[in-house]
Amino acid sequence: MRWVHHFTFLLAATATAAEAQELSLSGTASAGLVYDSDATDSEVSTHSEINFLIAGAGRSDGGLTFGAFLDLDEASVDDAEVFLSGVFGTIRLGRLDAASDRFGILDPGFSGIGIDDVAEQYRNATAGADVEYTWSRGGFTLVATAEIGAERSLGVSAEYATDAFSLGLGYVDDADAANGALSVTAGYSFGPVAVSGLYSDWSAGGQGYGVDLSVDTGPATVTAAWAQATGVEADPEAGVGDAYGIGLSLPLSDGLTLSGGLGRIETDAATDGARTVADFGVTMSF
Amino acid sequence: MRWVHHFTFLLAATATAAEAQELSLSGTASAGLVYDSDATDSEVSTHSEINFLIAGAGRSDGGLTFGAFLDLDEASVDDAEVFLSGVFGTIRLGRLDAASDRFGILDPGFSGIGIDDVAEQYRNATAGADVEYTWSRGGFTLVATAEIGAERSLGVSAEYATDAFSLGLGYVDDADAANGALSVTAGYSFGPVAVSGLYSDWSAGGQGYGVDLSVDTGPATVTAAWAQATGVEADPEAGVGDAYGIGLSLPLSDGLTLSGGLGRIETDAATDGARTVADFGVTMSF
Amino acid sequence: MRWVHHFTFLLAATATAAEAQELSLSGTASAGLVYDSDATDSEVSTHSEINFLIAGAGRSDGGLTFGAFLDLDEASVDDAEVFLSGVFGTIRLGRLDAASDRFGILDPGFSGIGIDDVAEQYRNATAGADVEYTWSRGGFTLVATAEIGAERSLGVSAEYATDAFSLGLGYVDDADAANGALSVTAGYSFGPVAVSGLYSDWSAGGQGYGVDLSVDTGPATVTAAWAQATGVEADPEAGVGDAYGIGLSLPLSDGLTLSGGLGRIETDAATDGARTVADFGVTMSF
Repeated sequence: MRWVHHFTFLLAATATAAEAQELSLSGTASAGLVYDSDATDSEVSTHSEINFLIAGAGRSDGGLTFGAFLDLDEASVDDAEVFLSGVFGTIRLGRLDAASDRFGILDPGFSGIGIDDVAEQYRNATAGADVEYTWSRGGFTLVATAEIGAERSLGVSAEYATDAFSLGLGYVDDADAANGALSVTAGYSFGPVAVSGLYSDWSAGGQGYGVDLSVDTGPATVTAAWAQATGVEADPEAGVGDAYGIGLSLPLSDGLTLSGGLGRIETDAATDGARTVADFGVTMSF
Repeated sequence: MRWVHHFTFLLAATATAAEAQELSLSGTASAGLVYDSDATDSEVSTHSEINFLIAGAGRSDGGLTFGAFLDLDEASVDDAEVFLSGVFGTIRLGRLDAASDRFGILDPGFSGIGIDDVAEQYRNATAGADVEYTWSRGGFTLVATAEIGAERSLGVSAEYATDAFSLGLGYVDDADAANGALSVTAGYSFGPVAVSGLYSDWSAGGQGYGVDLSVDTGPATVTAAWAQATGVEADPEAGVGDAYGIGLSLPLSDGLTLSGGLGRIETDAATDGARTVADFGVTMSF
Repeated sequence: MRWVHHFTFLLAATATAAEAQELSLSGTASAGLVYDSDATDSEVSTHSEINFLIAGAGRSDGGLTFGAFLDLDEASVDDAEVFLSGVFGTIRLGRLDAASDRFGILDPGFSGIGIDDVAEQYRNATAGADVEYTWSRGGFTLVATAEIGAERSLGVSAEYATDAFSLGLGYVDDADAANGALSVTAGYSFGPVAVSGLYSDWSAGGQGYGVDLSVDTGPATVTAAWAQATGVEADPEAGVGDAYGIGLSLPLSDGLTLSGGLGRIETDAATDGARTVADFGVTMSF
């Protein structure tokens, strides 16, 4: 959950309810310990992460919504996006992700122990995106992305979701690198129990599978994830093989959650082969 | 137009109307498509830009105004400035521009198609500035800039402006690089029509000329610009030759403007020779 | 003195006095001239510095305080920290300083002329910190720091302070670089007069001594500092030898102070040997 603090200011002379521009600041942070049985220097290390989001937004009297935001993390400015939204849908420009990037599985742990990366490495082929178009109606969401310029790619994904289940299909074609990826995702929730899955087939000869299961027990949420990659690796840091893990997440208060994850990653990744991974820490939202 | 949101906080015990410090956040953004007939990889590419300005300011009971600001763009922090202002004028420190940088011509397009660069490449000689002093009275503005340290330069400009016309003269001397530039600017507006021009003579053997014309038709503003550089180039990206363009700017709402520009740049610039340039997109302010 | 502007927002449904998350923005800046008789290019140069602090903080109904902050300076994002605080004390994660870093002497001047560096170069041995634990009760403060990972170090400091005097002892052991440093600090204030001192002994064969004296005369504060380093240098920019200086600080208004410093640094530092240093400028807070 993210709290967004809006401080709205209207132009005194001409402002109407339909016309306003606003700037908002929101943030998340996390801190804790990370364990990796195969780390080069030290099995245990600290991890902390901050993301403060600065967003500007406005609305025209013609019904257009427009805005821009960027993210301040511990060391840099990133994730800058400019958007324009109306009855036609939403157009975003910036350094974006390809259309299938929205499909994925959960990763246990406060900062993520990396189980999801094994399954998700193929979904975007080798493409990113400069521009994204999104159109939603009812439970249906259509996303199209493109790289225009030195790198050229196209991506499209369609997803249908109700309260209980979701189904998505995406295809990303990286034209300049001549490879593509087809991804299928599905999710189902029944009361406190939710499952979701991802399958990606990469034209360069790799396949990724992943499933997650989460149970909200009331005071805490238990999350389990399993992922497998076969064939050729797309992400050398993820590698090809199996990964599985389990995590627990315990909200302590509004904006403060204690989480931990434990898993096993058995891949042929160059830098990190078969290894046990774990983390334990807090996440915060402001 | 830029909306600045001020959130003022007074020191409870001693605050008077004359004493207050405040922090403000404001922002602009733009996004659209850019066309360049001579681009290496792709003639059409996307362009997006964000600038969030964080400013701190205060006022002493002795009449001094002081403050600092910096700019967050898509990837970094820049344009940091600290200033002190009083009856004596305003002193600024930071990574600033030389005194003639304030003279220029309009550039058509939502992000600028680069017509102005051809004319403006000589105005600052090869100098920047570490410190700037500004003094204004009536319509008269005097600006003096200096680089102090490893690089040494001096710049001075004087401008007189009324509602209808303006006239400016500037000289920048880059002492360590042993070159200087004299610039003259003039502007005239008559109802919805405004024209302005710039001439710079660079001691290293280059001259730049530029003229712009803008007409505010009510719903939209049309802008045309023409620029020429002769002799030796100062900016390899601008080159020596001719450039001309026209643009249209259509405010859609408070803070949202649709703009486009189309032009022709016929210079001997190493990377981009004779070419057609265009852009089309939106600009926003928050 | 630093003004922090809090804009608090409560969760409408469940908020109680004990539950709130907030984001705050505060800032400091400085600008002026710096003199160094031994500078390579120019004895006088300008100096300006900005620090805007973005902080998020929250409080749980169980009495935990949590938060994160980062600093925007002229060119980058740095000093990111995440903290969690309760009856057990405060834990911080981020790129932190070792436990004895809190001990130091005053440095005259608006931006600091570098007297303190000569005495302070040994206090942290060659260690930093990934995690810090602080516990305070009465006037007693215990700080423990550690580097966990590729670099390994431990630090601990204890300080007891009343209104009139303070006494501190710290030890930092840099395990991977195999050196350590013991530091002792003491301070005493009597009305407008305050003195403090630092002594550090570095196991690699260096000792640093420093004393400062400040007198608050009402309209202004005079600060004097003397420092000496003997043996082996820890900081090549500080070097081994003597340094002494005096400074004056004159508050002009809430948030605006005029300061200057003048000193002599007689060390064998590679880049800057025996030299006279001075600065003059303003500091601001927002």
